[in-house]
Amino acid sequence: MPVTADRYGYLGPEASFTEAASRRIPTLMGARLDPFDSVHAAIDAVRSGEIAGCVVPLENSVEGSVNTTLDELIRGEPVVVATEFLLPVTFTLMARPGTDLPSVRRIITHPVAEAQCRTWLGKNLPDASVALGSSTSAAASAVADETVGADGHPYDAAISAPIAAERYGLVPLAEGIGEDEDAVTRFVVITRPGRPPRATGSDKTSLVAYIRDDHPGALLEILEQFSTRGVNLTRIESRPTGNGMGRYCFVVDAEGHVADARVGEALMGLRRVCADVRYLGSYPRADGVRPPVGRGMTNEDFRDASSWLESLRTGRS
Amino acid sequence: MPVTADRYGYLGPEASFTEAASRRIPTLMGARLDPFDSVHAAIDAVRSGEIAGCVVPLENSVEGSVNTTLDELIRGEPVVVATEFLLPVTFTLMARPGTDLPSVRRIITHPVAEAQCRTWLGKNLPDASVALGSSTSAAASAVADETVGADGHPYDAAISAPIAAERYGLVPLAEGIGEDEDAVTRFVVITRPGRPPRATGSDKTSLVAYIRDDHPGALLEILEQFSTRGVNLTRIESRPTGNGMGRYCFVVDAEGHVADARVGEALMGLRRVCADVRYLGSYPRADGVRPPVGRGMTNEDFRDASSWLESLRTGRS
Amino acid sequence: MPVTADRYGYLGPEASFTEAASRRIPTLMGARLDPFDSVHAAIDAVRSGEIAGCVVPLENSVEGSVNTTLDELIRGEPVVVATEFLLPVTFTLMARPGTDLPSVRRIITHPVAEAQCRTWLGKNLPDASVALGSSTSAAASAVADETVGADGHPYDAAISAPIAAERYGLVPLAEGIGEDEDAVTRFVVITRPGRPPRATGSDKTSLVAYIRDDHPGALLEILEQFSTRGVNLTRIESRPTGNGMGRYCFVVDAEGHVADARVGEALMGLRRVCADVRYLGSYPRADGVRPPVGRGMTNEDFRDASSWLESLRTGRS
Amino acid sequence: MPVTADRYGYLGPEASFTEAASRRIPTLMGARLDPFDSVHAAIDAVRSGEIAGCVVPLENSVEGSVNTTLDELIRGEPVVVATEFLLPVTFTLMARPGTDLPSVRRIITHPVAEAQCRTWLGKNLPDASVALGSSTSAAASAVADETVGADGHPYDAAISAPIAAERYGLVPLAEGIGEDEDAVTRFVVITRPGRPPRATGSDKTSLVAYIRDDHPGALLEILEQFSTRGVNLTRIESRPTGNGMGRYCFVVDAEGHVADARVGEALMGLRRVCADVRYLGSYPRADGVRPPVGRGMTNEDFRDASSWLESLRTGRS
Repeated sequence: MPVTADRYGYLGPEASFTEAASRRIPTLMGARLDPFDSVHAAIDAVRSGEIAGCVVPLENSVEGSVNTTLDELIRGEPVVVATEFLLPVTFTLMARPGTDLPSVRRIITHPVAEAQCRTWLGKNLPDASVALGSSTSAAASAVADETVGADGHPYDAAISAPIAAERYGLVPLAEGIGEDEDAVTRFVVITRPGRPPRATGSDKTSLVAYIRDDHPGALLEILEQFSTRGVNLTRIESRPTGNGMGRYCFVVDAEGHVADARVGEALMGLRRVCADVRYLGSYPRADGVRPPVGRGMTNEDFRDASSWLESLRTGRS
Repeated sequence: MPVTADRYGYLGPEASFTEAASRRIPTLMGARLDPFDSVHAAIDAVRSGEIAGCVVPLENSVEGSVNTTLDELIRGEPVVVATEFLLPVTFTLMARPGTDLPSVRRIITHPVAEAQCRTWLGKNLPDASVALGSSTSAAASAVADETVGADGHPYDAAISAPIAAERYGLVPLAEGIGEDEDAVTRFVVITRPGRPPRATGSDKTSLVAYIRDDHPGALLEILEQFSTRGVNLTRIESRPTGNGMGRYCFVVDAEGHVADARVGEALMGLRRVCADVRYLGSYPRADGVRPPVGRGMTNEDFRDASSWLESLRTGRS
Repeated sequence: MPVTADRYGYLGPEASFTEAASRRIPTLMGARLDPFDSVHAAIDAVRSGEIAGCVVPLENSVEGSVNTTLDELIRGEPVVVATEFLLPVTFTLMARPGTDLPSVRRIITHPVAEAQCRTWLGKNLPDASVALGSSTSAAASAVADETVGADGHPYDAAISAPIAAERYGLVPLAEGIGEDEDAVTRFVVITRPGRPPRATGSDKTSLVAYIRDDHPGALLEILEQFSTRGVNLTRIESRPTGNGMGRYCFVVDAEGHVADARVGEALMGLRRVCADVRYLGSYPRADGVRPPVGRGMTNEDFRDASSWLESLRTGRS
Repeated sequence: MPVTADRYGYLGPEASFTEAASRRIPTLMGARLDPFDSVHAAIDAVRSGEIAGCVVPLENSVEGSVNTTLDELIRGEPVVVATEFLLPVTFTLMARPGTDLPSVRRIITHPVAEAQCRTWLGKNLPDASVALGSSTSAAASAVADETVGADGHPYDAAISAPIAAERYGLVPLAEGIGEDEDAVTRFVVITRPGRPPRATGSDKTSLVAYIRDDHPGALLEILEQFSTRGVNLTRIESRPTGNGMGRYCFVVDAEGHVADARVGEALMGLRRVCADVRYLGSYPRADGVRPPVGRGMTNEDFRDASSWLESLRTGRS
């Protein structure tokens, strides 16, 4: 199938938080967006060239295992992160037009949403029953379709992402009913490897470092590759490589861009001391933070050091 | 509610991989085991003293978010890991007695199991439809109950944990149909803090280190507390502390027991350099590995060093 | 020979910078002070109990090899540093009463003093000849005695420590004629090991760390024992251990006192990872600096960490 | 004065251990060799171009302060080490022809030699007096010239370097009479900076690292620049920079050549994190040791890492 530059996928179903994120990512504006059944299916479609990229959750997702995304990045044919996007997780109770809050008896939602909204439900709808569906989007769809529950009656309301109300013609009865006001999910756009986007001064670089041996200090050796070059890490996860519990790799998010001298040298250091390194891309930070670069760690500092070394090696000063 | 020493909980539903694990954990033999709706509910019942402990998945679970378990350990009233247990993840296709493999048309299972068994299904039952349920156990129960699917026909077979076949009176049609032969889930028994079990020489210690500031090298500083004392780590995860994306803590599994001198000194080091340290328990390793203790790092070495320091301080040699 | 608590030695000859330092060290006030021919002779007299202690140069000495002192501390029966003292190095041109500066033709001094005063001599006495003697003190003595030089004439003036003028009845013709205005020599009082002096908050601890193997990172491993406990080093020297060029030990001056928890733990760490550690004493800093103790590194922090560990180990909180 | 490529200096006087070393250094074969009065004078003559280079002791010298050499390298106009040479330190008792051992009554030598030979003298010439001269060479010369000592009689014998016997027409009465059989002095040839000699696989690189601030961990930060690139150190000395006691620099000998990728990257790292770095040259090791290069640290490994980084940056793989 030919690559269609403006066709992207996302982890479905439609009208989920992932679709909501996808619709707001600036670089995907105007692109066609299709849901995929699983993270694996979406990323495989990227690998095969069926789609130009796909949107999947990477951290703190409400629905869908984030570990699944990590494991797809760790194994199989390499892909990279092209963009990251942070979406606040806001739960909305929604119903068919004409339903008012007091009349809600039967609610359907995804188990994670149910857990997040339990306090609100206990206070506001203590007598309502909550059925669990496969996704918040499916829950909204079921309400729209007047799907019948176990008791033979149609569901009155769904707890879903705000986008689901528009999509299924439902109206919000209550918004922001989740417990954690600051809840945010980090989504990423996955593409095939290619030239990285230009450095912006507010960038992240992700990678997987596969340790050579499981010796004490192996992780320390990896981290020193960063610290010696003044590269801060924003996240680290050890993940089994898939060969039994115990052999590990580290998935790392570092501050800076592969084009930055300090990040480049740290990457080369990892390449030398690790069994393998998988580069997962450099991309602009969603939070826009521009952390200060440590003394001696700017591109200018690296250039100066390089000229100096050249003068030592040639004997010209 | 009074503490009942021999009442334990586990992450339900019944007949899941978690129950299967719970039934095999030696320290729970003879205990009453009750399912709980969520990791949160189970751990809260431990906190309140309703149950003596609970079994939850910590790594690589087929069903149930492992991050949920981590987050329960990171926040709220402290609890500890008392035991760990590794359960191989084996998927079984099971049906009502009298059903044979070729006649299977409608399958029900959990999405993760479906993903793991897709290859097998494609080869062996290419024409069967697969419906998704909330758990592998619920799927098995639905088959036993002859629950009717969307097409108005009862499901023929479920993909579930082997335990579900016994529980629901089903018979296995095919075993070990998952893709990853070596798949293993790590379960832990969570209890209230108390005197740790005796050191066995094959132990792990888990903890959460909350970094003081998000400065470059903060993680390195934490890891050096271990490496300086020759304590190897088997796992590290950075987790958001729950105050927005960005403030992190590290969940760490280290080799050795809190009673070991090297582990004790590393813990005290963390206590001094971290904003906070939450001890998550010392417990025997499920894999029985007895890693060699580095030169200078045995209890004997620490005792010798302590006597020597005493002689320097008092001037007696 | 019985130990005489109030008899001390110093590196001779008399009227040298070392005697000048010895006379000003507060803890030696009122003690009898005898010159010794060499650092080795002085320290051996301490070892045998002939004297209670001795004053020798340790850093930046004008006369006498400082490495000799280091090597005495590194090898042989252990001794410790009880006190340190900093003496500004001031060179004085001195002559018999009645001699004036313009008439000075023949000067005698030690080679190091000659080198330090060459600029002043070039400007002020460009035509004077400079003979070299075995010490600045011997030079002053030769002037006092009207010793005859190679040309058959007595020396007119000596460049010596100010103390030599008083001692030999000479008068200063010019003071502070050395090039380096800030030159300072660090002297130490060496004694047999014993109970260290009380911690003052402004202390140093000296030691020798003998590395186990000459592996890359051996020195780093040693330094991490300090940095992990927030102990700053003020000086480090690698010295051959005497078994051929190549096998090294490190002579280290660290901030803090052996009674400080952070220093004690660092010492114990060294004891565990090194082939051997020789404690060279804790003593008040001559410069009186009270460096701030890092966060988490105070005695209070160590006590708190220790109580916390105890509570984890016993299960009582 | 024009540079004369084949004129070299050495720390005098003639017939000393330094001249002996100079005569054996292969790269100086056929060169004219002139003695200089001091390390400072010799190195200044190199700086001014009066001589092409000079030979001075750097470690463990019998005569002449090694710290003087270090301080000349640390301060003033930069010079580099072009060659190193190890000379066994062998003391010979020598006399005018016709003198036999039992008749020796009056000995003259340098104080360091006297200290080294005290045991031998005590056993073999317990009744001989020992006068101290300014150098072992001057002592031999005094014996040859029948110089008269303090008692009005000429000296019978000198303890000197073997070379002094030939030079002054003396005959050895006893050889190898020093205490330390393995004593070795390390000499270096100092030149103006220029293109370094070709890497041989058995090289050393020397440098001075001036720390930015006197903060805890400053030395550690410096050492990590080496360890991260697998560069082993063979020697480290902290030296005062000359601005009062307390501000330090580190004189470091590292394994490898400035042309080696790992050494080059470590040098650049130092250049970035230090207040200043003074390169003191790369030169073949006198001991001929070819230490194994760590895994991931060869030039090939660095080239591979660099190509890989280039492919990431350009998006071409």
